[in-house]
This record gives sequence, C-alpha cells and structure tokens, in this order.
Amino acid sequence: MNYKLLIQYDGTNYSGWQVQLNAKTIQGELERAARLLEEGVRVTGSGRTDAGVHAEGQVANINLQKEFAPEALRSAINGNLPRDIRVFDVKQVDEDFHARFSAKRKTYLYRIVNAPVCSPFWRPYAFHENRDLNIDAMRAAAERFVGEHDWTAFSAAQSDSDSRVRTVHELSIDARFDERARGRLIEVRITADGFLRYMVRSIVGTLLEVGRGEMDSDTIQAAIDTGKRELAGPTAVARGLTLLSVDYE
Amino acid sequence: MNYKLLIQYDGTNYSGWQVQLNAKTIQGELERAARLLEEGVRVTGSGRTDAGVHAEGQVANINLQKEFAPEALRSAINGNLPRDIRVFDVKQVDEDFHARFSAKRKTYLYRIVNAPVCSPFWRPYAFHENRDLNIDAMRAAAERFVGEHDWTAFSAAQSDSDSRVRTVHELSIDARFDERARGRLIEVRITADGFLRYMVRSIVGTLLEVGRGEMDSDTIQAAIDTGKRELAGPTAVARGLTLLSVDYE
Repeated sequence: MNYKLLIQYDGTNYSGWQVQLNAKTIQGELERAARLLEEGVRVTGSGRTDAGVHAEGQVANINLQKEFAPEALRSAINGNLPRDIRVFDVKQVDEDFHARFSAKRKTYLYRIVNAPVCSPFWRPYAFHENRDLNIDAMRAAAERFVGEHDWTAFSAAQSDSDSRVRTVHELSIDARFDERARGRLIEVRITADGFLRYMVRSIVGTLLEVGRGEMDSDTIQAAIDTGKRELAGPTAVARGLTLLSVDYE
Repeated sequence: MNYKLLIQYDGTNYSGWQVQLNAKTIQGELERAARLLEEGVRVTGSGRTDAGVHAEGQVANINLQKEFAPEALRSAINGNLPRDIRVFDVKQVDEDFHARFSAKRKTYLYRIVNAPVCSPFWRPYAFHENRDLNIDAMRAAAERFVGEHDWTAFSAAQSDSDSRVRTVHELSIDARFDERARGRLIEVRITADGFLRYMVRSIVGTLLEVGRGEMDSDTIQAAIDTGKRELAGPTAVARGLTLLSVDYE
C-alpha cells in the first residue's frame, strides 16, 4: 500500500530533511517512527529542505505491506514523533505516486520581520531586518524573476541537477502590520515547477538588497542573463524559509 | 530617571517572571542585562507571570541614575538579553509611575488549537484540544464571568491578595480557521482590573469543560456564587497563556 503524508515541521532543531549519519533529520525521525510499524520502511519526500528550514506543507510517501486506516496510520506515526514534526493527513494513493517525481509545483514562503526589534515569537521563523525596506522596489524587482530562466546565478555552485532551468510561476510580496511582531511582517511567496538548492534563499537575499536600495533591477536582469553568481545577492538565512505546499496533478 | 519598558517574551524556557535562586526567570534576565548598565538596578513588572506563560505586551519600569536616550537604552538592554526576551519600547516616565501599582487593566489571551493534530508552530503557544469544541456554549458561559465577582473558586488556594474580588470587563472568544494550524484556532481574551494567580487558566479550563459538553453555565454560576473550587474546571496548561497588554491611565 502506498500512502501520501502531509507533514509540518519546525526545522529549528534539525539538520534538514535528508537522513544523515549522526545528525537529527526530519526524514530520519519519520523513518524511525514508521519502522516501529514495519521494518525497513523508507520515507520519500517531495524534496530536501536544508538545515533550519521549516515546512507547513511538506509531502512524502511511504510503502507499507500492511493496510492501515488513514487516521490510524497518522496517529501511529505521530505517536512516535517529536512534537516539532507532525503528520497532518494520510491518504492511500496509487502505487505509482512518488512524492518527488509526481510533484508539479512547489510554493515556498520567506518571512521577514521589518521592524526595529524582532519579536521572540517570529524570531525562529523569520529573518530580522531593522532598516525600512522599500516594498515597491522589491515588487518591481520580483517581476524579473517570474518565468522560465536558467538559475545558475541563484543556486548553489555545486548541484546534482542536470539542468538549471526552472519556471517561476508566481512571486508575490505581501507586507502588513502584524500584531505579534508589533511591526511589519513581509512574506515573499514563490511558486515554481521546481527549485535548485539555495534558489529561494538566493532570490530573497537579492530582493533584500533591492529593498535596502543596494541593488537595482538591471543588476538582477544581468545576473539572470549571465548566470554570474557574484551579481546576485547573498543567500538569506535558513530560518526564514518555509515549504508551504507541494502540488500534484 | 524612571523608564517604562514594553517587553515581549517566549516563556517556554523560563521559570516565570519573578527572580528565583537557581532558576532562569524573565525578571532575572532583565535585571542581569540592566545591571551591566548600572549596579543594583531593579526591574519592577506589572505582575508576575507563571512558568511557561508568554507575554506579547508585559510592562515594567526601572530607575536609573544616568539619563539615556530611549532607543539607546532599548538597544543596550536588548544587546544583553537572550533572543526570547525583547524590549520593544522604552519611555521616560514620571518618578511616581510604578508598573504594578499604576496598572489599571490587563488583557490576557489564551490560545487553543482545536483540530485533530496540533501544528508544531502553535504547539509552544497553545493548548491542543482534538475534540470539537462547542463555541456557542463557551460564549454563553463566558457571559457569567463578566462583572465584579469574588474569584475564590477560580484562583490558587493560597494567595497573597487580601481581597479576591476582581472585575472582568471583557471576555471574548474568537474562533477562526488558521492556515498555519491547518485547523481551528480559538482565542479567549480576558480583560480585568486585576487577576489572581491561576485565574485566567482556571476560567479557561472551565470554559473548555463547557466546550466539551461536560459542564453547564449553572455550575459556573454556582462556582462563582459559592467560591467552591471543586465546582470549577481544572487549570489550563501554562503554555497557552499570553499576557497581551497592560493599560495605565
């Protein structure tokens, strides 16, 4: 039986998604919990998230010999997981469903607290910028990223992908007063057919430079066109990043 | 010079507000930070919060010999505080301002995630109830609490207060779908001229019983009228509680 899992996790205390020797990882915790039900079970995620990155809607699948009622399986796995990882939903799916290969789109959210002081309640989930960011300039720059591009300038130098071409379908920037932050909370939301390593954090790091008035849209265009990493902004910190959703057919 | 401080803290890792020997407390951390500026400074809070309780708007005052620009004082204190305690605002105030004695009203918020699974992002700041709560019944019961009452049935057995009479000005219950919780988030908001120890958590614990259909409004009325603690519900867990604001003249 093949089961699709919808998962949330607070990535603060983990060395990312992927199983590693001698490190606590999300996949590792999920496999440990699932293997109490059945030996040798593997948990296949829609993709890796880096150390410190969160997920409000990660998707994975597991193959089990036994048949479980979805809610019973959810409870059984959650019962053996730490509280900062939770399975929200379990669905039985076709044998050919593969959390990674079947994924069509993903959406990431990057949160920025743009205020003099960073609320303790947002600190683990946002980057703190105390300089007033120019949202209009960031929105104008964001348009340059939308579409099919080679993302060489906005990804890790080493990458195991054959192609660095991906299509960004949407890139929106929401800015509003947040009561808990007692200041402005900015949410950068990016949807694409796929992401290279560090791609979102590199795009956001570049948008932050634009917001501070330290980069213009033409430089971004040049970075996209030439693939020169030195033209892009620095990679934004991991803790601001959250995998929001993964879309399938 | 007398300074009024507006403070937020995530109470998860603290033994409450008040200074204790051999325990990490909010007041202790604030005094440690302030004493790097001036020896022997005391930090006076609007009131204690218990271990694990949070604050989005705690108020305190400190007396300093030196005069500081408010923003410089804020930065100096924050620079020496852990990230889960932050001073948001500093104002110079009259010598007779006293964070506790001058306070007129306080507002607390109690958060409840009412969904089958508790999101890791709300877990440190909310109580998790997986049974569907009857909000209408809770709202009807909430009306019984509003007004001037003797809160003996809804407070700690031992209390250093002379009088257990307090006036609850407002008690509202907001219930809405929360995206991060992927389910219903309930916020119980209580404003009063003062609170006894465990009063909010005892009121909320009682409202939870009502929401589950295990207590009716008449029992609440009897608890208020007779002061019998055994008629009230259990004290709700600390982590759901947040001190939202303290009002002065």
